[in-house]
Amino acid sequence: MHKIPVGVLGASGYAGREVCALIQRHPVLDLVFASANTQAGESAELPGGGTVTFIATDAAPLNSARLVFSALPHGASQSWVERARATGARVVDLSTDLRIGNGASDGIPYGLTEVRRDAIRGADVVANPGCYATTVLMGLLPLLEQRLVQPGAAIHIAAASGVTGAGFAPRLDLLFGEVTENFRAYGVGNTHRHLKEMRALVREVGADVDLIFTPHLLPTARGILATMTVPLAAPIADAMAPWRSRFGSEPFVELASTPPETRHVAHRNVVRIHATRVADVRVPTLLVFSAIDNLMKGAAGQAVQNANLMLGLDETLGLPR
Amino acid sequence: MHKIPVGVLGASGYAGREVCALIQRHPVLDLVFASANTQAGESAELPGGGTVTFIATDAAPLNSARLVFSALPHGASQSWVERARATGARVVDLSTDLRIGNGASDGIPYGLTEVRRDAIRGADVVANPGCYATTVLMGLLPLLEQRLVQPGAAIHIAAASGVTGAGFAPRLDLLFGEVTENFRAYGVGNTHRHLKEMRALVREVGADVDLIFTPHLLPTARGILATMTVPLAAPIADAMAPWRSRFGSEPFVELASTPPETRHVAHRNVVRIHATRVADVRVPTLLVFSAIDNLMKGAAGQAVQNANLMLGLDETLGLPR
Amino acid sequence: MHKIPVGVLGASGYAGREVCALIQRHPVLDLVFASANTQAGESAELPGGGTVTFIATDAAPLNSARLVFSALPHGASQSWVERARATGARVVDLSTDLRIGNGASDGIPYGLTEVRRDAIRGADVVANPGCYATTVLMGLLPLLEQRLVQPGAAIHIAAASGVTGAGFAPRLDLLFGEVTENFRAYGVGNTHRHLKEMRALVREVGADVDLIFTPHLLPTARGILATMTVPLAAPIADAMAPWRSRFGSEPFVELASTPPETRHVAHRNVVRIHATRVADVRVPTLLVFSAIDNLMKGAAGQAVQNANLMLGLDETLGLPR
Amino acid sequence: MHKIPVGVLGASGYAGREVCALIQRHPVLDLVFASANTQAGESAELPGGGTVTFIATDAAPLNSARLVFSALPHGASQSWVERARATGARVVDLSTDLRIGNGASDGIPYGLTEVRRDAIRGADVVANPGCYATTVLMGLLPLLEQRLVQPGAAIHIAAASGVTGAGFAPRLDLLFGEVTENFRAYGVGNTHRHLKEMRALVREVGADVDLIFTPHLLPTARGILATMTVPLAAPIADAMAPWRSRFGSEPFVELASTPPETRHVAHRNVVRIHATRVADVRVPTLLVFSAIDNLMKGAAGQAVQNANLMLGLDETLGLPR
Repeated sequence: MHKIPVGVLGASGYAGREVCALIQRHPVLDLVFASANTQAGESAELPGGGTVTFIATDAAPLNSARLVFSALPHGASQSWVERARATGARVVDLSTDLRIGNGASDGIPYGLTEVRRDAIRGADVVANPGCYATTVLMGLLPLLEQRLVQPGAAIHIAAASGVTGAGFAPRLDLLFGEVTENFRAYGVGNTHRHLKEMRALVREVGADVDLIFTPHLLPTARGILATMTVPLAAPIADAMAPWRSRFGSEPFVELASTPPETRHVAHRNVVRIHATRVADVRVPTLLVFSAIDNLMKGAAGQAVQNANLMLGLDETLGLPR
Repeated sequence: MHKIPVGVLGASGYAGREVCALIQRHPVLDLVFASANTQAGESAELPGGGTVTFIATDAAPLNSARLVFSALPHGASQSWVERARATGARVVDLSTDLRIGNGASDGIPYGLTEVRRDAIRGADVVANPGCYATTVLMGLLPLLEQRLVQPGAAIHIAAASGVTGAGFAPRLDLLFGEVTENFRAYGVGNTHRHLKEMRALVREVGADVDLIFTPHLLPTARGILATMTVPLAAPIADAMAPWRSRFGSEPFVELASTPPETRHVAHRNVVRIHATRVADVRVPTLLVFSAIDNLMKGAAGQAVQNANLMLGLDETLGLPR
Repeated sequence: MHKIPVGVLGASGYAGREVCALIQRHPVLDLVFASANTQAGESAELPGGGTVTFIATDAAPLNSARLVFSALPHGASQSWVERARATGARVVDLSTDLRIGNGASDGIPYGLTEVRRDAIRGADVVANPGCYATTVLMGLLPLLEQRLVQPGAAIHIAAASGVTGAGFAPRLDLLFGEVTENFRAYGVGNTHRHLKEMRALVREVGADVDLIFTPHLLPTARGILATMTVPLAAPIADAMAPWRSRFGSEPFVELASTPPETRHVAHRNVVRIHATRVADVRVPTLLVFSAIDNLMKGAAGQAVQNANLMLGLDETLGLPR
Repeated sequence: MHKIPVGVLGASGYAGREVCALIQRHPVLDLVFASANTQAGESAELPGGGTVTFIATDAAPLNSARLVFSALPHGASQSWVERARATGARVVDLSTDLRIGNGASDGIPYGLTEVRRDAIRGADVVANPGCYATTVLMGLLPLLEQRLVQPGAAIHIAAASGVTGAGFAPRLDLLFGEVTENFRAYGVGNTHRHLKEMRALVREVGADVDLIFTPHLLPTARGILATMTVPLAAPIADAMAPWRSRFGSEPFVELASTPPETRHVAHRNVVRIHATRVADVRVPTLLVFSAIDNLMKGAAGQAVQNANLMLGLDETLGLPR
């Protein structure tokens, strides 16, 4: 089969390397360049085997690729998306720059694939969602769309992520010696930047709820688990019904009979969801768990899922389940 | 100085060994026996150095001790508390058996030291609190006592604990290979046994709230962090004021200006608390963080703190801060 | 394509589950049963996704399989190998029972694939090597075969393994709380049972050397690294030459220009080898590093590699590199 | 009691903070300044509790201290040692700058306390040993001093250290995501800088041996374990005798009956040693294990041990055992 040439900008970070690894094992996509400014000229090992050699981002032959993944840092990505577009390449942007709720997103589909599939199919540019936003929205949207949440209520979200979610940057607070045997919250009081995306989608489905979102840093490399308590408008008999009806036939959604563990979604492009009722409370309340691998369904995996759609391919190609 | 002889029943588990270690470094207490049925005759290294040799529990010379710590399993402890009492020894029971809300607790002070100090001082038996209950109650009681919580509201508690909280038992789900690089909830839907203690104290202060408590297992040996979102009756100007007025002069309470990290309380008999307001919500809401070392303030440390009081000693003796 | 039915005995342990996972993703093999006595009737999640439901070992339909993998415990495996053989099935035995140097191995090829490929091809039974033995022998055999080692010398081997190498058993010393933030040697003084296999192969190539083998337990789930210092008969100009000539075209051997890291071989059926000269020593000495994933090239992966050969398939089918 | 004022230069790194923590709990020493250039004006939490606020190194009031600990980086320390000396302060230098074998060490005692106690007592400047050197030399010197090693032999040392041994620096290879679930060698082929110290002391005892030293990076915060195989001049009946006669009454040396585990020396200023004979080798060989906490006996603890001696105090003051 004729391969489709694709490139990766900002390929040396955790998400960028994961995109390269997925492309190298993809049956149709062909990696024609991988750029990284600080590591230009160097090679890196990819997760699961294989290596990639980086070129300088300025030297990236954008016109050689039919689709470009941009894993450049937030703020630096948008101008490169435009350059790549100018050569006619399609773009999946993994930064926040073009995401809904972040200002510059007019007409650019938000790449939460299961929710925006029609808009993504054939789009020129897709803004790939944040890892926390993916975890939370896949867990909440069925309840909100089906008007099951108590109007005006606050949804309480405690989420925890492995350190690769913070990127491949030489930060003292991400050293092994600072993270091992530790657990802490950060971005507290509703200050995390992924809240914009979450709220934008909540608004779009017409839901009248507040979100209280508290992320935590786990002593793990990968994985996000969101634990959400949701006040309901009325008791619900079958706790999993909202997700079954909404996502029951989705290839990358796993509806679980027990709370998901992050290890069970590691290295896989899936979101795993479990819901259960809370006993001994006056307002009927659902406890919803949603887990992903932050580098797969939370970044590189969903990016390839979107690229498959944009290029008219089978959405599941090259993605581990 | 004349030393006070004390013994430990069920000393081979994590909490029991920590009690032994604290006693060995205590300036006044003297360890006269440490019992453990399955490891009788064996020696164990203690955290921080030192060793202990276990005798069979049936062979424990209860009458040689002025105070006995029971770290026996839940269900097995109560009868040994009675035997030790029959010899005239005072008892600190670390099991759930005699805790408030668990049925058999008539007249037995609940050993949340900062909250029940007067009852503990001079008591014959004290029921040492659960690790999660300690974390949660130290974080919530000031708000509840001061009538700052929205009446009828639900308080949302996501807590995470290191694995030693589950005890020193040969369980497959606690193997290193199952816990590393993993994060998961358990005891979900308000089913955890520490809820009884929590609710009993909430009721005692006359608060009309629901608790929604979801514990998680961390890939760490030690540490508990509780992240609690609390709907308020009215906005609060100074988020830390409730704890400052209540616990400001407590030797084992640290009021922090940033969210506590579990490593900062490791191996220390302290609870560290931080509170902050939540932005962009209709109901004024406080985010409260409370962190302890589950084996210290959550078990052995608080047990020694209580023993110090029961024996008329300085409450802080032999306890690392 | 017509699938080949295979079964797994003792499938609930780490190696057994890894074999099941590989079979489920294998393009030709078809898993017709997976047995586990203590977990009969239960389901387990497999690494990388997928689930398996165990039947009792006594109920395993041995005659339905053309090849059986036995991951039963050491001592319990041999009789089941015989039962499976009696039904005409081929067998790959992952236990020590039938390995060279362990007594019962007459005529049964030792499944170190790259070294015994011809004997394995078409064999009825293959004894899959131990994980340490695989790591060490792939690192040493080229030097020994090519007569590069100082005759009569001792080869010093310090090896370290992740905890899954110790199996999926409820042992207190394998609890997360005992392994995290710890490192220790075990089986010291040349007492580890894999030494028999190592020595048997060393003898077979006619090498006159002693082995000093010290295994250690790493706070990781997976991975083995062997660090070996080898006194040479004469200086060697090109440190990697012995492996290049011996394994240069092997699909599952990676010759690396820097010391291998265990994460780089995780979840992959490869051995990665690096050698370098030691400065400032009188006897010319080579430092050899060999790394594998103990559950892949050290157990399940090599078992499938051998099964592929025994069944006349492409040796690399279904194996992640 | 009158306290002795001391200061710490370069206090923001792992070793520097550990020194500050020890001083804050020391019964006699009083911390009068802690300097750190990049973090001047900031506060840091110390291991075990307590905080410290850093001043700029240039602003350190050297003349206010009777003894100064320098934990400045290698290369930057020597000139500050001289400045502190010019004010009359005694100095314990934790860098390599003044260590034996590193060029500038004329007349400056090497602070391996148990080996150089007389020279350290009353010295003006002491060069605190490297963490690996401490581990290795405490394990080897008794054998070498007692002429038990085969003359001309090579001693094979495989050592592994937790990441804090590499310092508190924003290095990509020390990020949690790079270290967790990983194990690797570094500084291979006898290139590690601590070899100079090791060889200098080996020479001083007149031993004719080669050292082959291979360090590894552990996925732990703390702890060093050295595994050493030592060819002997003659068989030895009592494997632990050499250490018992040499270190039997040392307060900070633990002679163990089983191989030491790094967790058992964590947060303690001790070296734990075990030796055992190797079976099935022609040259009688001893396997020697030596373990320390790299930040305690390997850095800050030994520094305080030396400071105690230099100031005429009880050597064990303020040091956890």
